[in-house]
Amino acid sequence: MSVTEAWRDPKQPVAVRVADLMARMSLREKVAQMYGAWLNVDDTAGEVAPHQSDQAPDPMDWTELIRHGLGQVTRVYGSAPIDPAAGARRVADLQSQIVGGGRFGIPAIVHEECLTGLAAWRAPIFPTPLAWGASFDPGLVERMAAHIGQTMRRLGIHQGLAPVLDVIRDVRWGRVEETIGEDPHLVGTIGAAYVRGLQSTGIVATLKHFVGYSASRAGRNLAPVSIGPREVADVLLPPFEMALRAGARSVMNNYTDIDGVPVAADRTLLTEVLRDRLGFDGTVVSDYFAIAFLESLHGVAADRAEAAANALRAGIDVELPGVNCYGNPLLKALEAGDVDEALIDRAVERVLRQKCELGLLDDGWAVEPEYLTDPCALDDADARDIARRLAERSIVLLRNESALPLRPGTRLAVVGPGANRPDALFGCYSFPRHVGIHHEGLELGLDVKTVVEALQNDFSLVYSLGCPVEGGSDEDIAAAAAVAADADVCVAVLGDLAGLFGAGTSGEGCDAADLRLPGRQEELLEALLATGTPVVLVVLAGRPYELSRQVDRLAAAVCTFFPGEQGAAALAGVLTGRVNPSGRLPVGFPGAGASQPAPYLAAPLGRLSEVSTVDPSQLFPFGHGLSYADAEWGAVSLHSPDGWATDGEVEVTVPLHNPADREVSTVVQIYLHDPVAEVARPVRQLVAAPRVDLDPGESRTLVVTLHADLLSYTGRDGRRRVEPGDIELLVARSSTDVHTALPVPVVGPVRHVGASRRLNHTARVI
Amino acid sequence: MSVTEAWRDPKQPVAVRVADLMARMSLREKVAQMYGAWLNVDDTAGEVAPHQSDQAPDPMDWTELIRHGLGQVTRVYGSAPIDPAAGARRVADLQSQIVGGGRFGIPAIVHEECLTGLAAWRAPIFPTPLAWGASFDPGLVERMAAHIGQTMRRLGIHQGLAPVLDVIRDVRWGRVEETIGEDPHLVGTIGAAYVRGLQSTGIVATLKHFVGYSASRAGRNLAPVSIGPREVADVLLPPFEMALRAGARSVMNNYTDIDGVPVAADRTLLTEVLRDRLGFDGTVVSDYFAIAFLESLHGVAADRAEAAANALRAGIDVELPGVNCYGNPLLKALEAGDVDEALIDRAVERVLRQKCELGLLDDGWAVEPEYLTDPCALDDADARDIARRLAERSIVLLRNESALPLRPGTRLAVVGPGANRPDALFGCYSFPRHVGIHHEGLELGLDVKTVVEALQNDFSLVYSLGCPVEGGSDEDIAAAAAVAADADVCVAVLGDLAGLFGAGTSGEGCDAADLRLPGRQEELLEALLATGTPVVLVVLAGRPYELSRQVDRLAAAVCTFFPGEQGAAALAGVLTGRVNPSGRLPVGFPGAGASQPAPYLAAPLGRLSEVSTVDPSQLFPFGHGLSYADAEWGAVSLHSPDGWATDGEVEVTVPLHNPADREVSTVVQIYLHDPVAEVARPVRQLVAAPRVDLDPGESRTLVVTLHADLLSYTGRDGRRRVEPGDIELLVARSSTDVHTALPVPVVGPVRHVGASRRLNHTARVI
Repeated sequence: MSVTEAWRDPKQPVAVRVADLMARMSLREKVAQMYGAWLNVDDTAGEVAPHQSDQAPDPMDWTELIRHGLGQVTRVYGSAPIDPAAGARRVADLQSQIVGGGRFGIPAIVHEECLTGLAAWRAPIFPTPLAWGASFDPGLVERMAAHIGQTMRRLGIHQGLAPVLDVIRDVRWGRVEETIGEDPHLVGTIGAAYVRGLQSTGIVATLKHFVGYSASRAGRNLAPVSIGPREVADVLLPPFEMALRAGARSVMNNYTDIDGVPVAADRTLLTEVLRDRLGFDGTVVSDYFAIAFLESLHGVAADRAEAAANALRAGIDVELPGVNCYGNPLLKALEAGDVDEALIDRAVERVLRQKCELGLLDDGWAVEPEYLTDPCALDDADARDIARRLAERSIVLLRNESALPLRPGTRLAVVGPGANRPDALFGCYSFPRHVGIHHEGLELGLDVKTVVEALQNDFSLVYSLGCPVEGGSDEDIAAAAAVAADADVCVAVLGDLAGLFGAGTSGEGCDAADLRLPGRQEELLEALLATGTPVVLVVLAGRPYELSRQVDRLAAAVCTFFPGEQGAAALAGVLTGRVNPSGRLPVGFPGAGASQPAPYLAAPLGRLSEVSTVDPSQLFPFGHGLSYADAEWGAVSLHSPDGWATDGEVEVTVPLHNPADREVSTVVQIYLHDPVAEVARPVRQLVAAPRVDLDPGESRTLVVTLHADLLSYTGRDGRRRVEPGDIELLVARSSTDVHTALPVPVVGPVRHVGASRRLNHTARVI
Repeated sequence: MSVTEAWRDPKQPVAVRVADLMARMSLREKVAQMYGAWLNVDDTAGEVAPHQSDQAPDPMDWTELIRHGLGQVTRVYGSAPIDPAAGARRVADLQSQIVGGGRFGIPAIVHEECLTGLAAWRAPIFPTPLAWGASFDPGLVERMAAHIGQTMRRLGIHQGLAPVLDVIRDVRWGRVEETIGEDPHLVGTIGAAYVRGLQSTGIVATLKHFVGYSASRAGRNLAPVSIGPREVADVLLPPFEMALRAGARSVMNNYTDIDGVPVAADRTLLTEVLRDRLGFDGTVVSDYFAIAFLESLHGVAADRAEAAANALRAGIDVELPGVNCYGNPLLKALEAGDVDEALIDRAVERVLRQKCELGLLDDGWAVEPEYLTDPCALDDADARDIARRLAERSIVLLRNESALPLRPGTRLAVVGPGANRPDALFGCYSFPRHVGIHHEGLELGLDVKTVVEALQNDFSLVYSLGCPVEGGSDEDIAAAAAVAADADVCVAVLGDLAGLFGAGTSGEGCDAADLRLPGRQEELLEALLATGTPVVLVVLAGRPYELSRQVDRLAAAVCTFFPGEQGAAALAGVLTGRVNPSGRLPVGFPGAGASQPAPYLAAPLGRLSEVSTVDPSQLFPFGHGLSYADAEWGAVSLHSPDGWATDGEVEVTVPLHNPADREVSTVVQIYLHDPVAEVARPVRQLVAAPRVDLDPGESRTLVVTLHADLLSYTGRDGRRRVEPGDIELLVARSSTDVHTALPVPVVGPVRHVGASRRLNHTARVI
């Protein structure tokens, strides 16, 4: 092999290099780029061995696997605790073997989970995505993602399997904690920021799960999705559009079917929508085992060869985690004439282009890479600062009857399953909760304070468990009540423990049948309330819960979606008043009806209360959040002298003043109300939500520029349209607390908009 | 006017008569045929006055209303108790006024609700449709509907606003009691029987609600429907196809939107699917106020003129109940050029064709009609016999730990809100429960026994309320428990009271937030169980409820969906053993997860339990039902020597033997399992369920003939296809209790099937 070969020459254009390489490759070598291996690598086992799984009944051995090269390697750090330095060394060794195994010496793309931080032992653990949503702070999320990317680079990883851009449709779904919220604009804004941050470090971001997973029937993991194409286009696709515009380089399919067609076998979505319409040219990777599921669970393929052919035709380029369908079964389908070799070339070309862009085709790629120099200190001061600030900004003060901030000298009872275990602060894709099933008693490898520990600095307190997240005894509940009875204030930390498939009450496979607090926690809360001691409820959870039976009796209520390693300090900051709470709900808390799916984004009929005994109103609506001190909003004005042209912009100006003697941070939410359209439209839909920080006494003016593309919706003919007519812009503190309603005439011809529509607002503070 | 005019001449073909009449009519006269009046007529008010409603802010006065003729009159009997004889006289008077009001002297089509019997005072009250489903007895339902039709004829009514063909998608929906079940084949089979029976008497049946209403999000009345076109085609449309093949002459639209498009404004569904594809040529009538809702609730029209134009273009011919949009607003839309006069002609032609077929264009239509001769004795012996037999056959024995039948001499406690009020036996469209809101203390006008009264013939019993359906006191629960403690057996009659919009816990607008028994009934049940006295639970309800916490402790459980005027006698028959229970569940009882929507008809992923903490399994599955004595089923055989041709039939033969010394009745359920298809398919789907009655000791052979059209499903291209491949036919006692699985090779070319597909099985007993 020589650098004179065009594919090895970094000076050649990517397309030339990839074409040259492909011309040299055998069919078998090409196909080997399209799959990977899920490797068990830990300090004890040592050996490289393909991950065992029912879905991979006949894994190839390692030597066989790398004989023609190997395109992908996944979850090297993810299955068991491995010291980062040893892990990085292992990855380098693995790559050496892979490079030595095939004829061309091309390393694999290494994937890892990284949603709330790299899912590896000792890596920083950031707040869960629902907390990112609550922060309404894309800048901070971008900074977090950049840190995650740097960590991954230091460990030899190329591709991160995040972010999750599913829009919440049913909060019973276990993966709600992995999502950013129930509003497409918020999800897209924050999700795009994550992509920018991660990819700024050279790591490939993977958008999950394209598209529709969150609408699984009854919120049950993997259940069929009953939605139509307009709901896909107007609710579920926009975050992907926004993240693709931010440059995302990879996309993962949704496991489920939509209206009977499994997405992994849906050419319309994976090729016509994603590539032809949205212009994506990166790789589509399968969710784990999703191609095999076409046979085993969806029943749309008679065997794995047919499954492979279906998926390839639809547009899945890479099979993850291992090789179940894209190896011999795919070759069999090709032999049988069920699939065209050109489709294999199409997928391989995309994979090799990505490798080329990552530098993996360059001669002399780092055999002794920089990442081996100092991979240990992953949880550095910068990580801790980001984690703390993001947690602080994501905590939502739901209700406050003058109980917060807690007065100095208050004798506290701190109660509840989330109060005194560090991993209660983590989402299900954090390393400890993700591998927790197999590694009970795992050392965290990080310095993480619990809520009790964080509050002990400020208060004299007594801790009592009350009950675990699930189960518990009468005695423990009574003991906690006794502790509460003796205190001035009781802080009850209730909610979820994240985990996978039954190892938690929130997380992948941990769906809820209803929205009562899990286990006996509602009973515990009633017992605490019965003491007469003021109760400050801290919902530490992965989803909102139904609090209507207790809410009026709570002295205060705070919500923190798994806030990560610095979450306890952040929470203590809010409870003591050191931090002025400024988070806003990215998903509403359900009302007494608590029926799901919820009606957020529904047209008027979906929110009408007089036609049904079930009142769909949210107890705490989307966008809700209180502060100890907040900005005053002045007279809002609109700059659009001749109306809003269907291809034009308007400026909304909001004067802001901080009358307080402390910093405030305010989220100015702008909603669209379109009263007459071709189809039923949401009553309110978020189009912008900039956050503005103000120093004590400061006055500033927020100027938000909105493009008419934000008015676009999918009409009867399936095309996105902006049309003239009278609309309203609602400048609001939450989705139900409107500060000013601005009537705006939209003028000009109907305009159809494509994938290039401008969904981002711009906000200036002057 | 002279009979020499072609339109008056009964010897002329309908088309000629209608064309002749239309040529003579002014635009104003045509439009007057397209709407009606909701008239308040009762013994006290006396006056004819249009019904007051917020939806009709500016009703015309009566003289103005009939000046150009009047197409329709609705709910004459439905708003208040009126003696049938007086009502019939009032209808005749009304018609005289209408005939006298317009230039052509054409009477109105008179509509009335008739779902569980004519919704008029003193008319027989039959079991609710969910009980028809439980009977699996289309013959008996046809007989019932024929009786309903005769009653309507005797009262001067032409069109009945039934049956409801919505397929249950979420049992939280209040209107579940009005539906026939959760399986399209069952709904279609029973619904078609209703249509045949009703229309055999000359009454026009109206299929409701075309299409999708039952999929309202979260089961909330009128909420948006998120489904795709394949679910519409393969789950929701088949019952309409079957009922249209049975000759149904009218169709009512679904209120909701589907994927953003309100059905009342959806030309695709109301014209392309309903007429062009399914070949319907009758009238489409609007659900009440549905056209005005296009403006006021859906936001797809700026005013009523635009709403009228939208609805007419889509294919709604008649506005009900009154004139909100199809009068002046429609004329305004016509004037503005928003709608073509040809569309008005299209609608009027359909209305007049129907009037012609009903004899309403004939000269000298009955001025003193036969129906005035003896309209009083509506609840005759035949009605009572049908009502009793249908109730008996619809009662489902869910569980029996040898507690039933009750032994003679048992001292009973009879407890619960359904135990001792006659109207607890009725669905929400029965006259007393439908008008109950406005007429508390209404005399039933029928001789209806309560459960307590029916059991008093056989047992010494003590009755105690326990608690009402909603609310109640600790004292009353304790009192009931005390009564139970003193008895040998406690019969607890728990469940719903039907009503409208909050006047019940089941019925239109009475949706459930969750599936716990309403109010304090679960507490009551626990208190009864705590006594140690064996508890026989009778679920008397409009939907299944979640019984998982108590089921193992119940001595027996019986389910009766509002069984109608003879329901108490039928229930007493089952409890005493005089009647051998033979009903089967038309909708499953939810399991511990109780999450909705339920996974019946879902593909494998929708039923998989290991991927979610929420187990979707039903506690009592679709098709479940026990008997005191049942038939023995012999060796099933399949007659298809060379496989099942894609355009052919197979015969399934099931030998049956009654080993008992009493009559038995068995429901042989045949399910289709199609393991590999283009799209994800239901794990099991009912294709036939004949009921066979056997005398003591009798042996017969059931032969069921199935056409390959039953295998058809909607493929990727949107066309219905029958394809070759290996399928299974499951001959089963319930959807989970399979007696024999028959593997069947389907052979031949892929065949596309249209609206004429043969969805009915034939069953012979030899």
